[in-house]
Amino acid sequence: MDRIDGIGERKAIEIISRILENGPPPFGIGDDVAIIDMGEDYLLVTTDMITRRTHTPMATADQIGWHLVAINLSDIGSKGGRPIGIVTALGLPNGTDIGFLKGLVKGMKRCASQYGTRVLGGDTKESKEMSLTGTAFGIVPKDNFMARRGARSGDLVAITGELGLAAAGLECIKSGFKRPKAIKALLEPVPRVVEGIALGRTGAVTSCMDTSDGLSSSLYHLARASGKGFMIDHEKLPISAEVGKLGLMEDDAVLHFGGEYELLMTIDPEAVHDAKKAIESNGCRFTIIGKVVDKGISIKRKGNIFRLEDLGWEHFRSVRKVRKLAGVRKMSKVRKGRKGR
Amino acid sequence: MDRIDGIGERKAIEIISRILENGPPPFGIGDDVAIIDMGEDYLLVTTDMITRRTHTPMATADQIGWHLVAINLSDIGSKGGRPIGIVTALGLPNGTDIGFLKGLVKGMKRCASQYGTRVLGGDTKESKEMSLTGTAFGIVPKDNFMARRGARSGDLVAITGELGLAAAGLECIKSGFKRPKAIKALLEPVPRVVEGIALGRTGAVTSCMDTSDGLSSSLYHLARASGKGFMIDHEKLPISAEVGKLGLMEDDAVLHFGGEYELLMTIDPEAVHDAKKAIESNGCRFTIIGKVVDKGISIKRKGNIFRLEDLGWEHFRSVRKVRKLAGVRKMSKVRKGRKGR
Repeated sequence: MDRIDGIGERKAIEIISRILENGPPPFGIGDDVAIIDMGEDYLLVTTDMITRRTHTPMATADQIGWHLVAINLSDIGSKGGRPIGIVTALGLPNGTDIGFLKGLVKGMKRCASQYGTRVLGGDTKESKEMSLTGTAFGIVPKDNFMARRGARSGDLVAITGELGLAAAGLECIKSGFKRPKAIKALLEPVPRVVEGIALGRTGAVTSCMDTSDGLSSSLYHLARASGKGFMIDHEKLPISAEVGKLGLMEDDAVLHFGGEYELLMTIDPEAVHDAKKAIESNGCRFTIIGKVVDKGISIKRKGNIFRLEDLGWEHFRSVRKVRKLAGVRKMSKVRKGRKGR
Repeated sequence: MDRIDGIGERKAIEIISRILENGPPPFGIGDDVAIIDMGEDYLLVTTDMITRRTHTPMATADQIGWHLVAINLSDIGSKGGRPIGIVTALGLPNGTDIGFLKGLVKGMKRCASQYGTRVLGGDTKESKEMSLTGTAFGIVPKDNFMARRGARSGDLVAITGELGLAAAGLECIKSGFKRPKAIKALLEPVPRVVEGIALGRTGAVTSCMDTSDGLSSSLYHLARASGKGFMIDHEKLPISAEVGKLGLMEDDAVLHFGGEYELLMTIDPEAVHDAKKAIESNGCRFTIIGKVVDKGISIKRKGNIFRLEDLGWEHFRSVRKVRKLAGVRKMSKVRKGRKGR
């Protein structure tokens, strides 16, 4: 296999990582942000790109601008960081409407302001198709930094917010249903910046990342970083009521759909109340959905334990990873467990 | 005019700047970098994109990687900054060869290492055409920061290196001439990082930027930032011997061709020896090419003074700005001056 679509994004990142030899996370390429030691603090840097493949065609210019900033701030927040600025590189086709450009920049500014930071500048270039890159930076006291690696067996797995809203939003747009909350969740995602900063201060979190690739993929990423596994309790998942109302395939919408920016974390069981308080005092839902185990990503459902497959989005693998398949139907029963916890 | 190609890149940036309301440079969008106040230092951030329009098709993957890092480090260096890291967002078509990806990353690493910094990570996404964005950050003590604005009438105008080498490189590639120095200058440009840091320490520089848009455009940018003008002495321009050897249209190659990354600066006349020493002690050529005047960008040539037109590259204006025209033939004689200095 000599082509990138033959190996997929993850392998491509491994190849890049080997060449760059930056050492293990958090200083290597394996975390969600790049880290620079600034004495008492870490400077966090993240870069994220919206291309034809990843943006939502039905979004307005303002919403695309919001989205570009939000996905980058989400990575800063997921590490406990306070955003201190963002720069953007806008590759735009020659025929781009000025109204579109204005909308885009207003949306960028609106999102940055909402989370206490600013778009500081950037680059604007002609390109055949729209290609938007945002780079956000943030500051976090070293003690408050939440790495992707650090989960220990016995830790609890928790998540912010609700699951399935982004998938519900897409369904509403496709089918013309007017459910503003779901549509907004998809097109103007809320980065968990305030919650991330509050969580970082508790010292309760042993590993953390956002769920932008979908819950199943994010669980795999987070487990792999620590060389651990997870046992997820299906009954605990904070599934949005919209999923049922719209009659969505639940596992698709909740487990595998990307475009959600919740914080997925592992927590020291003794400090779980601190974490819960940090999230809930910011008006956000906090749910314990499982625990860290030695290996394997499993999901407990109606008394049975299944292997949870990684069916989230991966770039350069659109042919291989069939996202449309209902995850639960593809699960293979691996062992029988006791019901509940 | 409702389309971006109807107004050009500069106007587009003005529109963006008005919406972002970041205030005047150096904190606004008008400088080459974004600036964050870190107490004793400024954190500098710059983002620059290579698209189909701006990359050189004959470059190897390694050279494209070098180029992506070099153009970003050049902006950090031109402000007196020491680079502390770079992140990249690589938008690649699905059919991209793994060998190409490896070459790209090796080139990025090679350039970063050369200038004492590292590629810390980034994003990799599927896109229809190749779109590469680099974001570099650097640190500069506030006193050493070289802004784009600050030129005063009577200051000297100076430049590092030689002019016309990139144009010579392109000619060599097109015509199959084997002149490695020129070809390398085009495909593996040298960012003036070491020189920029040394210059910043002198305190002699009143304004500075790199010449990536071509000398004429860069002179216009630099003059506009301070509300001043320049009188350039054609006989002083450090024109590369390659330009004559290859029989290039001199003004095209020297005044208007982009893709060179020299430092263009204005200097306090009393401190000019410090600036010269800072550059030359790093093995780089330093040339005074003119002086700052109240207004107008003029060039003195064989005793006559002409208005220097801005014929450098501007995105979204490829139809209007005809780069291929020999600049000197389009110059209008505005007034007669004394020869030389």
